[in-house]
Amino acid sequence: MISRVLSAELAEHAGERVTIAGWVHRRRRLKSVSFLVVKDRSGVAQVVTSAALPAEESAVRVTGTVMASPRAPGGAELVEPEIEVLAEPVEAPPFDLYRPVVPAALPTILDHAPVALRHPLLRAAPEISAASAAGFRSTLDGLGFTEIHTPKIVASATESGANVFGIDYFGRPAYLAQSPQFYKQAMVGVFERVYEVGPVFRAEPHDTARHLAQYTSLDAELGFVRDHRDVMAVLREVLAGMLDAVRRRAPGAVAALGLDLPGVPAEIPAVHFTEAQRLTGQDEPDLSPAQERWLSDWALREHGSEFLFVTGYPMAKRPFYTHPDPDRPGCSNGFDLLFRGLELVTGGQRLHRHQDYLDALAARGECAEPYEGYLRTFAYGMPPHGGFAIGLERWTARLTGAANVRQVTLFPRDLHRLTP
Amino acid sequence: MISRVLSAELAEHAGERVTIAGWVHRRRRLKSVSFLVVKDRSGVAQVVTSAALPAEESAVRVTGTVMASPRAPGGAELVEPEIEVLAEPVEAPPFDLYRPVVPAALPTILDHAPVALRHPLLRAAPEISAASAAGFRSTLDGLGFTEIHTPKIVASATESGANVFGIDYFGRPAYLAQSPQFYKQAMVGVFERVYEVGPVFRAEPHDTARHLAQYTSLDAELGFVRDHRDVMAVLREVLAGMLDAVRRRAPGAVAALGLDLPGVPAEIPAVHFTEAQRLTGQDEPDLSPAQERWLSDWALREHGSEFLFVTGYPMAKRPFYTHPDPDRPGCSNGFDLLFRGLELVTGGQRLHRHQDYLDALAARGECAEPYEGYLRTFAYGMPPHGGFAIGLERWTARLTGAANVRQVTLFPRDLHRLTP
Repeated sequence: MISRVLSAELAEHAGERVTIAGWVHRRRRLKSVSFLVVKDRSGVAQVVTSAALPAEESAVRVTGTVMASPRAPGGAELVEPEIEVLAEPVEAPPFDLYRPVVPAALPTILDHAPVALRHPLLRAAPEISAASAAGFRSTLDGLGFTEIHTPKIVASATESGANVFGIDYFGRPAYLAQSPQFYKQAMVGVFERVYEVGPVFRAEPHDTARHLAQYTSLDAELGFVRDHRDVMAVLREVLAGMLDAVRRRAPGAVAALGLDLPGVPAEIPAVHFTEAQRLTGQDEPDLSPAQERWLSDWALREHGSEFLFVTGYPMAKRPFYTHPDPDRPGCSNGFDLLFRGLELVTGGQRLHRHQDYLDALAARGECAEPYEGYLRTFAYGMPPHGGFAIGLERWTARLTGAANVRQVTLFPRDLHRLTP
Repeated sequence: MISRVLSAELAEHAGERVTIAGWVHRRRRLKSVSFLVVKDRSGVAQVVTSAALPAEESAVRVTGTVMASPRAPGGAELVEPEIEVLAEPVEAPPFDLYRPVVPAALPTILDHAPVALRHPLLRAAPEISAASAAGFRSTLDGLGFTEIHTPKIVASATESGANVFGIDYFGRPAYLAQSPQFYKQAMVGVFERVYEVGPVFRAEPHDTARHLAQYTSLDAELGFVRDHRDVMAVLREVLAGMLDAVRRRAPGAVAALGLDLPGVPAEIPAVHFTEAQRLTGQDEPDLSPAQERWLSDWALREHGSEFLFVTGYPMAKRPFYTHPDPDRPGCSNGFDLLFRGLELVTGGQRLHRHQDYLDALAARGECAEPYEGYLRTFAYGMPPHGGFAIGLERWTARLTGAANVRQVTLFPRDLHRLTP
């Protein structure tokens, strides 16, 4: 049996008889000869034939002789082919997949994801997601982090009572985890530095372009930090590693989308929340989307950076486990990272002493009881620690310029969408 | 500020004043001097002091002068230390974490996972899991696979009606995905070769040592295969890559547990189901645990392999999407991989033609309607394909000799256990 050659490797086999496999991307019939463009995971190959042409999107295997041809994609084409149809489509795709621009609206694309994503422009974003996740992991591996897998079914919806999915757990109520927050903190007590790449669930009742009911969270947490600045330094390395992985692992997707990937400054500029308020001339306890956009523009203008840290968010606006800024009462050691006008990452230093947790809950008028399991983690000596979470879909959407996170999610879940 | 040094690097800094950080592992008081053993993610370091000693498991930072000392762990110790307690335990751990053998039963360990896993023997298995998952991904990355993230919330429990968790999805019924099977097949139509590392959910009503309500599934699927043998060849590479990663990335865990890691033969021996029945002298339509153990022993004896493929399982015992063996009616192109007496991996070739799916469902007396979304995938030209799924916890349990998968799972979920 002749083993299969990828279309991108065709030119290396000039003169040989080889087998390629893929899908019929396009058919072109001329007077005396026809061209079949076959796509596989590496690109496209041209087949010259006078035989009948299988329908577009047919899965085919083609054995032929490689001939150098400067006008063919990749500089070579297959002649004298034997074409074997492995499976023919039984219906036409919802739009022509060979058009250079996608001639379909988002709902059509999502409804037909298994075939629509074959379009080179639509398969590019998931490739960038995959490369980004690989870069996230390899950067953290290099920094001594351990990968963990934590429960997605939890007993109580403690982190944020709202927007949680209920589940029937052997007749008992349970919930889908909104984040691995408590587990990754607990595992800092064991491994010092941990990360998880996994699904998180939010019963988001609003139909927005930024929210999904399930998304992939890139979570990291590390112990023995000075404060949140050590966490920010790791995040800077992670972002650089993710972008580097996109460049190295998904050059085809980057080219297809014509992306201009951002540089990551050696030190990402940071602005304190109170300074951010002063700059934008507002004093609400949170930053509005318009303020975030303004600050991003400002960072680009003043610091030449597409990334900007905002530090020192008011304690009242952060979760109860947030570590306060010891020098500025009311301010936290929590941060957000803005990227191209949008909040992309939330992180910060957490409380680490058992008594501080009890005090923080009491100060918010909350009972400690529902948090008992969580609090036990801090009963045995936990170091100062902190971490962050990056929403993979949001990251990919920002990077690719997608206006809606659904454009970069294989099978999005939201208020209305539960299939395919 | 003096930046932190890991305990494993201490000997490289002889004569210098450095800072280490970690937890108090053990205190030893002699007449004139005391020793504090501090553990961090790299190992342990010895501190010589005459000061008061913080309690075991206190999180500490110690600045001291490194002195070569052949009797100290790593060949160096810290003298003239300044010891800073970052957080003291407010209660004692459920057992002494410095004992060489874990003096606690499984329920105690699981109830106290955040602190119990600090024991070197208990943190070893998760490290082997992490290394294994990294090896799974890097092997498949090298073979041109693309990582995907698929929905864990699905509209119908089609793959196997039983043992599914129901969820309230914005007032509509939905289910937790029992596997990414349908999605990974669909994405073969886009990326040819895909993998996913993620949680799957089984409402397993039986309390066994092998089953969890949530486990981590290492899923792979690839297109343009000849048949299941191409899938088995990829699985062979994956297993070798996982073991290689365990050796390279988790040598400390391997040493702590005294593991004897198996070799993977260049070609893993395979036995047909009917031959397996003949060898074991039984003719049930499935293999019993006793038969699996016998066959594993046989493979080791006859082929010197701890791995054994069993191919050609009866179609009646495999899911409807299984591809039949064209040459042996009633037999499938599905396989199991036995490892040390237990089924570790299930895989096979799947149907790829739309009509074959309709026929297969009809032959089983099933309506096509609930499968409509799934079947659409096969309406657009799908290549011959197949794949497999490895249960990460089961793999780690087999590798480490753990009798119960719960021993190698950070926070297991089962019929009785929903916390921590």
